[in-house]
Amino acid sequence: MTQVRLAAVQMAMGDDTESNVATADRLVRAAAREGAQIILLPELFEGPYFCKDQLPHLLGRARPLTGHPTLAHFSALAAELGVVLPISVYELAGQARFNSVVVIDADGAELGCYRKSHIPDGPGYNEKYYFSPGDTGFTVWKTAHGTIGVGICWDQWFPEAARAMALQGAEVLLYPTAIGSEPPDPQWDSSGHWRRVMQGHAGANLVPVVAANRVGREVGSPTEITFYGSSFIADPTGALVATAEREGEAVITADFDRASLSAQRATWGLFRDRRPDLYGAITTLDGHTPR
Amino acid sequence: MTQVRLAAVQMAMGDDTESNVATADRLVRAAAREGAQIILLPELFEGPYFCKDQLPHLLGRARPLTGHPTLAHFSALAAELGVVLPISVYELAGQARFNSVVVIDADGAELGCYRKSHIPDGPGYNEKYYFSPGDTGFTVWKTAHGTIGVGICWDQWFPEAARAMALQGAEVLLYPTAIGSEPPDPQWDSSGHWRRVMQGHAGANLVPVVAANRVGREVGSPTEITFYGSSFIADPTGALVATAEREGEAVITADFDRASLSAQRATWGLFRDRRPDLYGAITTLDGHTPR
Repeated sequence: MTQVRLAAVQMAMGDDTESNVATADRLVRAAAREGAQIILLPELFEGPYFCKDQLPHLLGRARPLTGHPTLAHFSALAAELGVVLPISVYELAGQARFNSVVVIDADGAELGCYRKSHIPDGPGYNEKYYFSPGDTGFTVWKTAHGTIGVGICWDQWFPEAARAMALQGAEVLLYPTAIGSEPPDPQWDSSGHWRRVMQGHAGANLVPVVAANRVGREVGSPTEITFYGSSFIADPTGALVATAEREGEAVITADFDRASLSAQRATWGLFRDRRPDLYGAITTLDGHTPR
Repeated sequence: MTQVRLAAVQMAMGDDTESNVATADRLVRAAAREGAQIILLPELFEGPYFCKDQLPHLLGRARPLTGHPTLAHFSALAAELGVVLPISVYELAGQARFNSVVVIDADGAELGCYRKSHIPDGPGYNEKYYFSPGDTGFTVWKTAHGTIGVGICWDQWFPEAARAMALQGAEVLLYPTAIGSEPPDPQWDSSGHWRRVMQGHAGANLVPVVAANRVGREVGSPTEITFYGSSFIADPTGALVATAEREGEAVITADFDRASLSAQRATWGLFRDRRPDLYGAITTLDGHTPR
């Protein structure tokens, strides 16, 4: 059995955590009823996207992973449904705070945690105020339904993250997301740009890519953002094979054959022809190789 | 003056070098008449794409860069028209052979040579028989019309190459190309995949990307390929802003403002938020960091 059905869940979040968890639970069940085996929820789905403004009390939303009620909830649900669930939470670790995903396998076991590596900062997306840059590096997890890599939102703009996960054997790349309008310019719509960069990761690594975004208008203090949904699944050539609208809840799915994907990656030859000896510039910020 | 007009030339090649050079000359002049300042010709436009088969006598097509008649021709043309011309040739260097591009500035001066880093090999595209993997690394050139980076065909599938050039200050990425049908499977059309990967480079690096491909059916001994054209220019979000058809000669152009591009790169924040400390896997073939 090398067939796998992937799903992205798109939803809106309100102020009440229990209600958001209930919505996520309902949509995960809907995806599982459609046969999905790896189901991606959006970034930080427990609540509103709190990084719209820099407010000290919101730092208090971070919770330790141990004994985390939302993780316990979805661990039980994953086991009940036999599905893989990457769960996005605001992690408190000692005095540090991270934007993290815990990967829950189809038996409910937590396989590990990835901490968002690339932290954005700009009007409406003040993540450097809330999160330290992740220290886990890029990781892949062998789940019951295939080896997966997870990046978190802004990570999706960095080909390095996608490539690092593909090199480590990711058969699917998953990106929980919170992206929408840009407060300085209501006409600025990044959704096409956002999709094309991830479609590029799919094509350049010959792996399916799943992006799950939130929807709806959220009003902070004072910043407001309208999240643009547009969740999608791209095939290993980067073509869109499932898409959600800009508004409204959605469950989208797509099927892949893992053996075929593996054969396609080998045949196309990209991973044979890489030139690590020439990639030194990538490991610098300014492009000058350290040699 | 920070406006720049980019052009891609799409053409078919026959057996006669002089005739191919004359066609390229005519189309470069056409692009210059339209105001183009950086004009990209396809890969190895002096002749048929000779890598369709592994034939010893075709190794004799390689020529030293010094005294190369095609380079001399286009150096004079660049100076006459005041345009930048990256010129693709089969280079003989001592006992080595490379798939190279010489960048000619708008005054006719040769700025340097880039040797194709990633060499494909498969039915119809037997490049490892004809070329050593390039030893120059990725380079950018400050031309009269902006700083450019050049990758050659298969290089376009590697986000590492695009990123390395962007990190070094490339304001535009140029990809001379020879791609078409796959001899093992006439139904296999890689053109969408091919475009999306480069659209991804544009979006992930916030630079325009220009790809110039050849067209037409070429019959080797015995392999034949129909080159699919589809040359394009993508904007810095990866959107297609100029496209050519799958058949026939074409000159396509697009305008960009270099100051605006630079401001857009800074505003979006990607180059601020990179994590070179986490990119060690990129410098390996197997994804395991050497540490």
